[in-house]
Amino acid sequence: MSENNDIRGEEQTECKTSIDMKLKPVGIIKNKIEEPFLVAGDGGLEMRGKFDATMDHVRETRQGISEIVIDESLVDILDGIEEYSHLVVLYWAHKVPEQGRSLTKVHPMGRKDIPSMGVFSTCSPARPNPVLMTVVRLCGRKENVLEVSGLDSVDGSPVVDIKPYVKNSYPQEEVTIPDWMEQLQNEADGLAREDVSYSREPIR
Amino acid sequence: MSENNDIRGEEQTECKTSIDMKLKPVGIIKNKIEEPFLVAGDGGLEMRGKFDATMDHVRETRQGISEIVIDESLVDILDGIEEYSHLVVLYWAHKVPEQGRSLTKVHPMGRKDIPSMGVFSTCSPARPNPVLMTVVRLCGRKENVLEVSGLDSVDGSPVVDIKPYVKNSYPQEEVTIPDWMEQLQNEADGLAREDVSYSREPIR
Repeated sequence: MSENNDIRGEEQTECKTSIDMKLKPVGIIKNKIEEPFLVAGDGGLEMRGKFDATMDHVRETRQGISEIVIDESLVDILDGIEEYSHLVVLYWAHKVPEQGRSLTKVHPMGRKDIPSMGVFSTCSPARPNPVLMTVVRLCGRKENVLEVSGLDSVDGSPVVDIKPYVKNSYPQEEVTIPDWMEQLQNEADGLAREDVSYSREPIR
Repeated sequence: MSENNDIRGEEQTECKTSIDMKLKPVGIIKNKIEEPFLVAGDGGLEMRGKFDATMDHVRETRQGISEIVIDESLVDILDGIEEYSHLVVLYWAHKVPEQGRSLTKVHPMGRKDIPSMGVFSTCSPARPNPVLMTVVRLCGRKENVLEVSGLDSVDGSPVVDIKPYVKNSYPQEEVTIPDWMEQLQNEADGLAREDVSYSREPIR
């Protein structure tokens, strides 16, 4: 075996390992959000712009229509999808820099007034595998294009998967979340900010 | 530049493209299910064993405790997670063969009595990107190990991501699903099978 072949062989072994859990984009998202509002840099997670103004913009976008354009060669994969009112969309956060994948703790929504938390306790777009998930309302379909509302992803995000939203597969019992997350949700919904203390006590 | 270098260069370009959306496992799932109950072969999706017996087994497993073992080096990423009652788990369907990723239409749950549907209209584990999702109840945490219930993934599945389950991010309005999916859900829940016709009419 020549040296040439040896090199090719080694490279292919490396590639093979990387291919094992390699995603292939199945489409692209067309949306009015051009840049992510949360940015992962050396200082952790930071919000671009002011919280309230950003949340207004996100709310506005959510109410509008976004397009999910599936590769034309895959159009059959959508057969029957019009019968669902809601879909789960998985997409790749393509604007998260590689270094963002190494963060283990962040201030939720880049908010320094909230203690930093483990990334898996937050909705940070910067995570080891930046696969983001949103449940959207299906408004219409034109061949390989789905028109949906409620999608706050950045324009150009590669689509990883679409799944039906089936309510029975989600908790029917009571659900608890930390106080800081409830407060963030309220603020994102445009409710008045209250002076809450962010409890770190486990609920159970 | 020698021929050697040319070859190495080309290989690296190929690898780089594949790395762009490459997932890295952050942990592993320990579960009592050893083999997937749905198998993607040349004939599409098929169920291993009888539907009713398999569903009994899945229900049983769901009620038991599964373990999600996160890489010890990443333990900080779980900080604060005990405050949630439920989590979203994304994992890789590692037993789906490569050819299963090319399927565009399948009989839901391998059931030949239901017309074949686009993969994105089904919960098929065989999909272009076999990233599966389950919402689980968090029962406890011991350092880097999460004890959860409701997880019906195959033992040894690589963990892709864990997200908090925040009810507000899911539809609060009415949700519709196709008749065939409702029927499958009922049967999986152990309700009596009814003789329904599987309507292909869009609801809206």
